[in-house]
Amino acid sequence: MPLDINALEDAFSRQRSIRQYDLSRPVDDATIERLLKAATQAPNGGNRQLWSFLVIRDAGIKKQLEEVYEEEATKYLGGRTVGTTRWGDVPVLVAVMAPREGGGPSIYPAVQNLLLAASVMGLGGVLTTLWKAQEPRVKSILNVPAEVEIHAILPLGWPDRKYGRNKRKPVAEVTYRDTYGKAW
Amino acid sequence: MPLDINALEDAFSRQRSIRQYDLSRPVDDATIERLLKAATQAPNGGNRQLWSFLVIRDAGIKKQLEEVYEEEATKYLGGRTVGTTRWGDVPVLVAVMAPREGGGPSIYPAVQNLLLAASVMGLGGVLTTLWKAQEPRVKSILNVPAEVEIHAILPLGWPDRKYGRNKRKPVAEVTYRDTYGKAW
Repeated sequence: MPLDINALEDAFSRQRSIRQYDLSRPVDDATIERLLKAATQAPNGGNRQLWSFLVIRDAGIKKQLEEVYEEEATKYLGGRTVGTTRWGDVPVLVAVMAPREGGGPSIYPAVQNLLLAASVMGLGGVLTTLWKAQEPRVKSILNVPAEVEIHAILPLGWPDRKYGRNKRKPVAEVTYRDTYGKAW
Repeated sequence: MPLDINALEDAFSRQRSIRQYDLSRPVDDATIERLLKAATQAPNGGNRQLWSFLVIRDAGIKKQLEEVYEEEATKYLGGRTVGTTRWGDVPVLVAVMAPREGGGPSIYPAVQNLLLAASVMGLGGVLTTLWKAQEPRVKSILNVPAEVEIHAILPLGWPDRKYGRNKRKPVAEVTYRDTYGKAW
């Protein structure tokens, strides 16, 4: 049966960026594989599918990435992260990559499919780029070759609590008709 | 009732990039507004919602944009577009914009929400950036101010025919475990 658009709209309105997780509940490989399949269904330039994914569960690697993230959080957010599960404790980190030439924007629709599917399955996650200022160090930790760029790292886990719907401006506030500035 | 993940996965697998439309069927404003609402539900940096949308129906403006698009198609695709509705005839073009500083990648999850919602409603569309080499001319046609960047233009209409499911590589071909190159 085809998906009802009202059900999809409801799912969109419930998608939130989740940064704190219930650490008593693991996330199994089968769940991660479903999320990655959702990601790979996204439209992408010429269907070249230039994306690749790195699923990180190793505690030592997560801890090294946490150090990078917390350093950048200190610089840009004015302190260590608060209300955010430390990356060393996050059940899974997923790095989303593409070739340095040509892959860029195509990964974001894939990331959105992944995070929407996670939300519908009751999981939480968030797209992070705060570590990007230290991408060379991150690539070294993960053995990522020079010609590949890491665009996003997504912590994933079961949410620590229930979250309400997201809050957005009305469409009419961000929409124009025919030319810029003309009211919708 | 919460959305069933199987239904969402089915919808992902049916999303295709649609470039040719049934011109006997108009697309009304209420439908476009639903798509834009889907777009604005997407996650975005700090919930700043820096995106804006321009819904283009004016025949003269669409024709001017068609001239740009066909020029670039001639350069990059080796000829005028084939199997693609000319932009002057497309029911609606939606330009997706953000401030030149800070807005960039956040628009792509929004575009994916819009195109997925369109697909579930039976509509077709595609993300185009081929015109980007002539962005100053496009901005001039649409009166877009200097500090705003146009990231994507989406032609939208009812598909000319039925399309099958998309085709993608298996997840295991594009996924690594813990470090780059280590098999999933």
